[in-house]
Amino acid sequence: MEAATRIRIVLVGTQHPGNIGAAARALKTMGLSRLVLVAPEQYPADEAFRRAAGADDVLAQAPVVATLAEAISDCRFVLGCTARSRRVALEELGPREAASKVVALAAADEVALVFGRERTGLSNEELQLCHASVHIPANPEYSSLNLAAAVQVLAYELRVALLAGHALPDATATPRQELAASHAQMEGLFAQLGETLDDIDFHKGRAPDSAMRKLRRLFLRATLTEQEVRLMRGILADAQRMARLAGAKAPE
Amino acid sequence: MEAATRIRIVLVGTQHPGNIGAAARALKTMGLSRLVLVAPEQYPADEAFRRAAGADDVLAQAPVVATLAEAISDCRFVLGCTARSRRVALEELGPREAASKVVALAAADEVALVFGRERTGLSNEELQLCHASVHIPANPEYSSLNLAAAVQVLAYELRVALLAGHALPDATATPRQELAASHAQMEGLFAQLGETLDDIDFHKGRAPDSAMRKLRRLFLRATLTEQEVRLMRGILADAQRMARLAGAKAPE
Repeated sequence: MEAATRIRIVLVGTQHPGNIGAAARALKTMGLSRLVLVAPEQYPADEAFRRAAGADDVLAQAPVVATLAEAISDCRFVLGCTARSRRVALEELGPREAASKVVALAAADEVALVFGRERTGLSNEELQLCHASVHIPANPEYSSLNLAAAVQVLAYELRVALLAGHALPDATATPRQELAASHAQMEGLFAQLGETLDDIDFHKGRAPDSAMRKLRRLFLRATLTEQEVRLMRGILADAQRMARLAGAKAPE
Repeated sequence: MEAATRIRIVLVGTQHPGNIGAAARALKTMGLSRLVLVAPEQYPADEAFRRAAGADDVLAQAPVVATLAEAISDCRFVLGCTARSRRVALEELGPREAASKVVALAAADEVALVFGRERTGLSNEELQLCHASVHIPANPEYSSLNLAAAVQVLAYELRVALLAGHALPDATATPRQELAASHAQMEGLFAQLGETLDDIDFHKGRAPDSAMRKLRRLFLRATLTEQEVRLMRGILADAQRMARLAGAKAPE
């Protein structure tokens, strides 16, 4: 199950070190081993290693980084776990479909499953780095899954999907013709798109955030290939060139 | 989901009271509420109530009995959770099939899902009271699921099965918030996109077909909403306006 090695579980801003240890244990029981910690509040901590039980190797290998962007820069698909449907209108998957999508993509690409803080989850900014969200269908009257419990449920679904994929040896063996764009490539596109909207005076005084949010959603949802990113950036470059020419003409 | 009220989760001989609390929380998050404790080692205990968080009602209502036989005396189907295939030759189910069987039977009958001790699981005598066993397909090299984590995984599968049974009639009734663009709207977008590529001189003498084919594929795959089509067309209109200004400047 080599695909398992391309799946990383990212914990963002975890408050309780015990949850980090319990998450490491949950991963290892399900045959996963790649944990990345983004700005944990208290770490390293004895409590984390105590709760990891025999999964202290997973913990010992887990990089600690400062931002989610760093944790996922080379990922081609990023899934954010949300406690409920969010303001950010990301595509929302159930755990089962999310797991089969992650496992299918992990046949060739680096993918990440991201969990937010115990109290407050992922920020809207962090969610905007995700291609889609996954929501565990908890009891609406009491949806407070413990962080490690949420990791356990999704790691379990990943294992079921990995085992299913394994049993069908050829299902994932089909080579993908085109590589999905990485996080960094998509951010490059979005940066240029933002500049272009300014250059062609798209906003006309309105705040640019809303349009950019909608455009990010559209293009992340489509999971662009590297070639498509190059195509889009070529179009934007020409639009920018025209805007510069027009500006040279009518600077008033 | 009345069937949920006929499903009881039985914890036998639990050693750590924290696990009892965490199990109560796991049940409640998945919409289950019936917990039965068979001869817990330390109970009641503050640690159990602390870990139960907002699920202390589940804990407060949980009967404590002396034997598994007592806990399941009125049950018509009893499923024992085992860490691995056991000496007792019980029928062994995976979590998914176990959950759908439990939920189907719970439509009419009392059913129980039984979890053993942290270290040693269920005794052979206790397993002989079960109709079948359920095994979570853990990593064979590290299968030590925490008790509460095992309860969480099975409670999750029960919830998925309960929702599937319950939600079938309404599954397609959920209104989509945003209407997908019609074929004609998408063709309108593509026509304007084609004009814009000409206006900004994107093709530079190359045949336009290949780029347009790739762009159609990208935007059709994303299934744009009507609002997104309007947004894209607004951007294209501004790029076209700039191209006209630039053209007026440098017509040579």
